[in-house]
Amino acid sequence: MAHPDLPSQNGNSQEDVQEDRVQPGGATALQKARARFLKGVSYFSGDMEVFGKWMEKQFFLLRLLDWVLRGAAQVMFVNNPLSGLVIFAGLILQNYWWALNGFVGTLFATISALLLQQNRGAIAAGLYGYNGILVGLLMAVFSNAGDWYWWLLLPNIFMSMMCPIVSSALASINSRWDLPVFTLPFNILVCLHMVATGHYNNYFPQVLIQPRSELPNITWAELDVAKLFMSVPVGIGQVYGCDNPWTGGIFIISLFISSPITCAHAVLGSAVGMVSGLALAAPFGDIYFGLWGYNCVLACIAIGGMFYALTWQVHLLAITCAFFCAYLGSAIANIMSRFGLPACTWPFCLSALTFLLLTTGTERIFKLPLAKVTYPEKNLRFFWKLKKQEKTEKAEKERKERDEQQRAVEEEVILNEKEQLKVELERMEQGKTENEAQEVKSDSTEE
Amino acid sequence: MAHPDLPSQNGNSQEDVQEDRVQPGGATALQKARARFLKGVSYFSGDMEVFGKWMEKQFFLLRLLDWVLRGAAQVMFVNNPLSGLVIFAGLILQNYWWALNGFVGTLFATISALLLQQNRGAIAAGLYGYNGILVGLLMAVFSNAGDWYWWLLLPNIFMSMMCPIVSSALASINSRWDLPVFTLPFNILVCLHMVATGHYNNYFPQVLIQPRSELPNITWAELDVAKLFMSVPVGIGQVYGCDNPWTGGIFIISLFISSPITCAHAVLGSAVGMVSGLALAAPFGDIYFGLWGYNCVLACIAIGGMFYALTWQVHLLAITCAFFCAYLGSAIANIMSRFGLPACTWPFCLSALTFLLLTTGTERIFKLPLAKVTYPEKNLRFFWKLKKQEKTEKAEKERKERDEQQRAVEEEVILNEKEQLKVELERMEQGKTENEAQEVKSDSTEE
Amino acid sequence: MAHPDLPSQNGNSQEDVQEDRVQPGGATALQKARARFLKGVSYFSGDMEVFGKWMEKQFFLLRLLDWVLRGAAQVMFVNNPLSGLVIFAGLILQNYWWALNGFVGTLFATISALLLQQNRGAIAAGLYGYNGILVGLLMAVFSNAGDWYWWLLLPNIFMSMMCPIVSSALASINSRWDLPVFTLPFNILVCLHMVATGHYNNYFPQVLIQPRSELPNITWAELDVAKLFMSVPVGIGQVYGCDNPWTGGIFIISLFISSPITCAHAVLGSAVGMVSGLALAAPFGDIYFGLWGYNCVLACIAIGGMFYALTWQVHLLAITCAFFCAYLGSAIANIMSRFGLPACTWPFCLSALTFLLLTTGTERIFKLPLAKVTYPEKNLRFFWKLKKQEKTEKAEKERKERDEQQRAVEEEVILNEKEQLKVELERMEQGKTENEAQEVKSDSTEE
Repeated sequence: MAHPDLPSQNGNSQEDVQEDRVQPGGATALQKARARFLKGVSYFSGDMEVFGKWMEKQFFLLRLLDWVLRGAAQVMFVNNPLSGLVIFAGLILQNYWWALNGFVGTLFATISALLLQQNRGAIAAGLYGYNGILVGLLMAVFSNAGDWYWWLLLPNIFMSMMCPIVSSALASINSRWDLPVFTLPFNILVCLHMVATGHYNNYFPQVLIQPRSELPNITWAELDVAKLFMSVPVGIGQVYGCDNPWTGGIFIISLFISSPITCAHAVLGSAVGMVSGLALAAPFGDIYFGLWGYNCVLACIAIGGMFYALTWQVHLLAITCAFFCAYLGSAIANIMSRFGLPACTWPFCLSALTFLLLTTGTERIFKLPLAKVTYPEKNLRFFWKLKKQEKTEKAEKERKERDEQQRAVEEEVILNEKEQLKVELERMEQGKTENEAQEVKSDSTEE
Repeated sequence: MAHPDLPSQNGNSQEDVQEDRVQPGGATALQKARARFLKGVSYFSGDMEVFGKWMEKQFFLLRLLDWVLRGAAQVMFVNNPLSGLVIFAGLILQNYWWALNGFVGTLFATISALLLQQNRGAIAAGLYGYNGILVGLLMAVFSNAGDWYWWLLLPNIFMSMMCPIVSSALASINSRWDLPVFTLPFNILVCLHMVATGHYNNYFPQVLIQPRSELPNITWAELDVAKLFMSVPVGIGQVYGCDNPWTGGIFIISLFISSPITCAHAVLGSAVGMVSGLALAAPFGDIYFGLWGYNCVLACIAIGGMFYALTWQVHLLAITCAFFCAYLGSAIANIMSRFGLPACTWPFCLSALTFLLLTTGTERIFKLPLAKVTYPEKNLRFFWKLKKQEKTEKAEKERKERDEQQRAVEEEVILNEKEQLKVELERMEQGKTENEAQEVKSDSTEE
Repeated sequence: MAHPDLPSQNGNSQEDVQEDRVQPGGATALQKARARFLKGVSYFSGDMEVFGKWMEKQFFLLRLLDWVLRGAAQVMFVNNPLSGLVIFAGLILQNYWWALNGFVGTLFATISALLLQQNRGAIAAGLYGYNGILVGLLMAVFSNAGDWYWWLLLPNIFMSMMCPIVSSALASINSRWDLPVFTLPFNILVCLHMVATGHYNNYFPQVLIQPRSELPNITWAELDVAKLFMSVPVGIGQVYGCDNPWTGGIFIISLFISSPITCAHAVLGSAVGMVSGLALAAPFGDIYFGLWGYNCVLACIAIGGMFYALTWQVHLLAITCAFFCAYLGSAIANIMSRFGLPACTWPFCLSALTFLLLTTGTERIFKLPLAKVTYPEKNLRFFWKLKKQEKTEKAEKERKERDEQQRAVEEEVILNEKEQLKVELERMEQGKTENEAQEVKSDSTEE
């Protein structure tokens, strides 16, 4: 945790490998260039720790912007302002009004956390902003009053400012099990707003969501494979409520900037969601629209390397969790639709919490202490360090035990030798006295 | 906590202030009269500790009545039998049958707690009765079988007697976070009874509650300002399910008897609820009927001085909580209506628990340990005492440090002086020897 | 806990009593025969510990079968492979396809627990199988695709394999209050599957469950008393989703094999459920079908001797819990029907957890530590042993105190005697000196 410039070397190891392939056994000049390149990469990948430290000395508004950008990226567990910037770019590409609402949400959530004197480190990591951006965005997405309905900013600001309160309250509960709050505050607050006003409201009407009441028409011949493949980036975009595949693609880039492992699991999760949708006879439209993907994306990221150290077992667990999350997603969507509500990210929260509460006997599924969670690559290094430490400790212990055993053996040998010497000496002595006695005897007999 | 007669002097400080205004700088005779008056007030305001102690020696039925009356008032967090008596008067004014059901509920809940050997102090404070009165009252209010349907007393008694069991079970959970159970047992049990029987039941039919399915007609011109103002006391009355503004007024009086701070926050909460209703486009009828007020009343009381020590920050937090509670009230009412259920006081419970789970970095938002909670005025004195104690301890510590520093300085001075004296002495000695040497020298030269 | 052959002697005390009645004061030969009989009974009653120990040395598939059979019986809290076998017989009598699904569910749940390296002792006790059998059975029962729809095995296997994950996660939470997870994993997973697919699904349609929307026709004259009595075994059968009274009868036998107390409470619970149904104006059809019984059966078993040590107070508590559970059952069934879901065993889980969270001041309601729970008869012996130990400890303490008092008295006596002797001695000495002085005096006067 001490070398802020190290993580990225690891974080971008895939790129290294690719370069290595192009020029196996390069010259020293090339090695130097590579080192310089890695050094450069380390400045804007991972959690941009150097940048964050530099920011601490800047003036308040600039730091606030840093926090807001990190907050935007934290939805995907990414603590990186550059990723946040790219994400905002993707949002603007999707819809100006939504992007504005998202920005307002993040801003006011962060301000509220400052007013309530929450932990400064957490605020600086954007942990109080990510619920805000989702609240702002999704309230705009599900509003039935159309874009640029400025009154919406009022409940938006109120709900965003409630985020740190709900976060703090939930953290008081979840911390007992060393669990994060995920996007639960967002889920609670957006559902709260939507169901409090509802579709039939004069001021803040919501889009009409109704439960399914007849068999959907599923004809496999009508399946559009191109759209099906497109649903993978769309699923990633739907994490922020966006259905534009380009926006989804931009989000993938933003993930890759910070952590390739996160990026890979995001794509994998979205694919698992798509497959689950097909398996459970979902209408193709829903699958194309990415509704089966976004929860699985988040669940797969959370389990696959973020809160567990990535091993093969954990990778399999992450895929299982994604499947479970897809199932749960369908279930929750059906239940919520009875109240005119969308599923939000409840399925992700519940499935990820379930899988994080799991306790197993194997060491290969290692849950990181919440305070040590950063990003998959750094987590992995922490896990390896811990393993190595344990190994050396064990080896040390074994060595000591062996030493002690040997010493004991040696001591025994010495003792035995001493004993032998003693015995010999005694024998000699005895022999002497016997001799003397004999001598005396002989003397007396002589006399 | 040691002076049972002190609280009320503080608790009624507003009255004192008023008297002071009438006669600034009164004579000694007047001061004596005032002291006597305060002493008198102290006997029936606050939690009537003197009366409670006196009661301990009375025979069982009288004590049971005391507990039942305190239980009736504990719905508003008031531990005062006189307030309870006034509340029963208000209930009788509203509806005889409801009042009877409320009384039966409180009685059997208290008896059940005695049978289950619950904490005697809690029973004596009415903490096992308040859920009972609400269960009894609201089961009568929401029954569709009409008044004086005597069979209703059967489920009423059963559910009242379940109150201590559910209370105890919930307390086992909530106590882990040092939280009260509020009216959760009432919410659970009344919803249980209502949804178990439902509207279409031959023996215990419930009133029909249906979800909103069309846009309500809201014309601001039709707003009746008189009714809007009246909704403030009605909102307080609705805590007990009463829509009579006079009953609400009587309840305000009962609150004022025990604790003016509680009373002020109750009125404030009801007003916040009314404003929220207008802001969220609620039908005017609901607002007039006090449905937007009662949860906010309870939430505002709970946060504003009851479980937090009252400071300006806490006062603002209480208002925020009331707004949040109104929002939540609308949401929960919409959800519950799908099951034919009223919102009960779920919104209050959930919002107050959320705000009590909040952790902040500021000292000005101080959550009292649950065991120390009495009533706002006494809580405040506890908080001030704690503050003063901390201050004196800090001052003491600082004084000690200063003393030590001074002593160290003095010691250094003494040491320096000693050192100086030593040096001088040495020098003198040296001078002496030098002189002697010189003398010797001179002697030798003289010779 | 040390004598595996003892439990059954107690567990079958009722049979003993019956035999005693037949031949009061039998000969020694008869006594020997009885002892041999009891010894024989002890091998297949209780938790069959001897058999379990013998099994440990057998090859894997046989042990797996043992675990699966124990898992089947653990639904009723019975840890006995013979009971499990009898239960499977009952299931086959009901429906081949359901029995197959139940077997597949138990098997894969147990395998999944092995893969996830869960506690081996818990797996061997069938604690990872009972949710699996319920998941498998009820998914088949509520499937609308008809029997022998082989595709159903796919979600069946997936959901069964999720059981240990959900169990482990819930146990992480419940263990904080030393509570079991009951059948919560089954409830969660079956509801998940049913609501995720729903009635309108092309691949996995569920039976249509709709909320009641009109007054049921209840004519007491139409009450069929024979069917009403039959509803008691049917209610026990409905624990496994079976409506065949013979199947229910077989289940009663399987309970009696392991623990007569469990068996008695199962019948009692089913009867309480039936009475509650009549009291709450349920349609007679539902009561005949056992829908009012199965939750009460489980709740009554759980409270009556399984998790509390059986005393008269606990027996009454178990009956109260059964009534509460019936009420809750009606409520939950009404709520779940809005989502097209059955009540499953949610009512049992919630009511039993509530009653286990109860804390009282009386010693007669003793909740066993979760790790010490086995079966009612053995629990009772544990409780008695504890009581006896406490008693002897108390007596010991009192004896010690008495001894010490006596010794103190004796010591005091000795001290007093010593003191007296001293005083006397002093007096004597004094007398002597006085005499001497007198003598001296007299001497001097003489002179």
